[in-house]
Amino acid sequence: MDFQPDIIDLGMGNPDFDLLPIELLRRSAEVYFATADRRSLQYGVEQGDGYFRKALAEFLVGVYGFIVDPDLLFITSGASSALDLLCSLYTHPGETIFVEEPSYFLALRIFEDHGLQVLPIPMDGDGLIIEVLEERLQEVHPRFIYTIPVFQNPSGRTLSEARRVELVDLAKQHDFLILADEVYQFLPYGRKPPDPLAKYSEKVEQVISINSFSKILAPGLRLGWIQAHKQVINRLSGSGLLESGGGMSPFTSAQILGLIQSGQLHANIINLQKEYATRLGIMDSALHEKIPQAEYEKPQGGFFFWVHFPGLEAKALRPIVNRYKVDFREGGLFSSEGGLQDFMRLSFCFYNQEGILTGIDRLATCLKDRSQS
Amino acid sequence: MDFQPDIIDLGMGNPDFDLLPIELLRRSAEVYFATADRRSLQYGVEQGDGYFRKALAEFLVGVYGFIVDPDLLFITSGASSALDLLCSLYTHPGETIFVEEPSYFLALRIFEDHGLQVLPIPMDGDGLIIEVLEERLQEVHPRFIYTIPVFQNPSGRTLSEARRVELVDLAKQHDFLILADEVYQFLPYGRKPPDPLAKYSEKVEQVISINSFSKILAPGLRLGWIQAHKQVINRLSGSGLLESGGGMSPFTSAQILGLIQSGQLHANIINLQKEYATRLGIMDSALHEKIPQAEYEKPQGGFFFWVHFPGLEAKALRPIVNRYKVDFREGGLFSSEGGLQDFMRLSFCFYNQEGILTGIDRLATCLKDRSQS
Repeated sequence: MDFQPDIIDLGMGNPDFDLLPIELLRRSAEVYFATADRRSLQYGVEQGDGYFRKALAEFLVGVYGFIVDPDLLFITSGASSALDLLCSLYTHPGETIFVEEPSYFLALRIFEDHGLQVLPIPMDGDGLIIEVLEERLQEVHPRFIYTIPVFQNPSGRTLSEARRVELVDLAKQHDFLILADEVYQFLPYGRKPPDPLAKYSEKVEQVISINSFSKILAPGLRLGWIQAHKQVINRLSGSGLLESGGGMSPFTSAQILGLIQSGQLHANIINLQKEYATRLGIMDSALHEKIPQAEYEKPQGGFFFWVHFPGLEAKALRPIVNRYKVDFREGGLFSSEGGLQDFMRLSFCFYNQEGILTGIDRLATCLKDRSQS
Repeated sequence: MDFQPDIIDLGMGNPDFDLLPIELLRRSAEVYFATADRRSLQYGVEQGDGYFRKALAEFLVGVYGFIVDPDLLFITSGASSALDLLCSLYTHPGETIFVEEPSYFLALRIFEDHGLQVLPIPMDGDGLIIEVLEERLQEVHPRFIYTIPVFQNPSGRTLSEARRVELVDLAKQHDFLILADEVYQFLPYGRKPPDPLAKYSEKVEQVISINSFSKILAPGLRLGWIQAHKQVINRLSGSGLLESGGGMSPFTSAQILGLIQSGQLHANIINLQKEYATRLGIMDSALHEKIPQAEYEKPQGGFFFWVHFPGLEAKALRPIVNRYKVDFREGGLFSSEGGLQDFMRLSFCFYNQEGILTGIDRLATCLKDRSQS
């Protein structure tokens, strides 16, 4: 590894440096530069380059198994920028939005910058609890619900097929947007997850699917896409930001085009799945063996274990944990109501086998010393 | 040219395709990939890579002639995204901002998306008229003033040295931000312009300088920077968007690093200055000869002629102008009070000598036919 900090931070949400495919990107860039096509250096089409959207749509068809129209894809500079842009265009400060409890803590920061009031909706093993959502909708009209419907960050949970249908129905009935952050859709390590909410977006204007190359290629590219209804795509493309700056990633998307067309993106994902599945198994065994009091649903995809320690306040470990040269993300970060203090998010993707084993070992010692002190 | 439309659109604000330095970028990318440094593929430092900021600061010192602290630079994905982010973080819908009259019409679109009330402040040959600004400040407190203080788009005008001092003093006194869009600072074709407003930003928290590689390298990179006070840099770096997505352009900035360090960015700018100066002269002569009724101040830098046609309503040419296979940007677009109908913005940068001559020829014929009809 070219990143070897002293502390093993099992809280990291990043991919492993060793799995960032620089050689693939180098070869893809070489192909791009060989064409010497200067279009990609000019202000680009607002929606994103047509060839790129076509290649991306074909890739998505291969994974999703349903038709994806390139005209309903909008190229972004990553999921965070997509969320930010959607907040700018579709919300006003003071408006209410719904999020899952727990939810991705840095998305919550984006909503805060836009002055939005965040109301949490609880989840169970099948994801967002629709009955509770329905109840809340009687009292409050949210501008949107932000959901990570597959291998959620941090809980690892996936919204069931049946609930997806109910959620979309509610969105139509009550006219709120569903901002579906589907970045983990491509990283199942067992059974295929339900079809992404993207599937509904062509027909249902309320469904907006946000996606990214960060988890399947490299975060540094700052490249992603939105799949949505034509009305939404037009609103995004016609925004001041896009009309002024042109497409969000002409140069980067041009460099990635060859890599998608040649099937190497697909191959990279297969490689990631294999590697991450192994790491998941290793962390699962290590937790069982070293930290038997840890309670969790074994994740079926994505990046994270969401671990419950009954009776522990994870934040209370903060002053001592670094002494053990290990770290984690406290559950409280993922709560929009000050709860989840007895949870930790642990990633099985950033460190290799050795790193995971050492990390869990250190965490176990830390917890043991703490419980004896 | 690899872009040969039927119509010569003298309204274009883009650089010429032929002047987009793909070969420079190819070599710079090659140097980058040879290092195989995966840091640039990871979520990046929020403020932008430190090596990149250091190289950029050294480049800026060379042009500006004063010290630029890399810690006061923040890497963006272009001037439009910088403006958008600043609006998200520093304004609320309904607040008032000031702009120059005329101003860059697509910036106005960004302000509109953020629900801002735009009040125009007139300009004269020395730029923004400070007396009028002072008067307005008695009645209204703007959140910021958006100014293009050098070789303005569209007027070509430059804010005088004395007025810069007055503007900064007013911003301090009345506590409003100056968003200075200084993208044309590097493109003078005669005398060096006054120091950029960036110079004040280290000491004065109200001054935020926005800049970009779009005009000096290539728009498709979607790469730019903000130079500002440490407080502003911290606010930007600590925003939800940045904390979630990391630095805005790790991959692209890594590819450009070598090009800046080796002095090739500087060389590219010298080349652009030479070429654009020639084109400026050609358009100037052609206007004199073919459209003698055109009134304008000859630009000293930037991209544009801002041409006054007394008695003409530029919009009225719209239905017929395409018949002459030529186009322009109507003055009205640049007004936030429905004025400037008798102006046109013409660019001397997008077309080469032949294109400019043919374009002005066609425009002359169109105007002549119109006046006789």
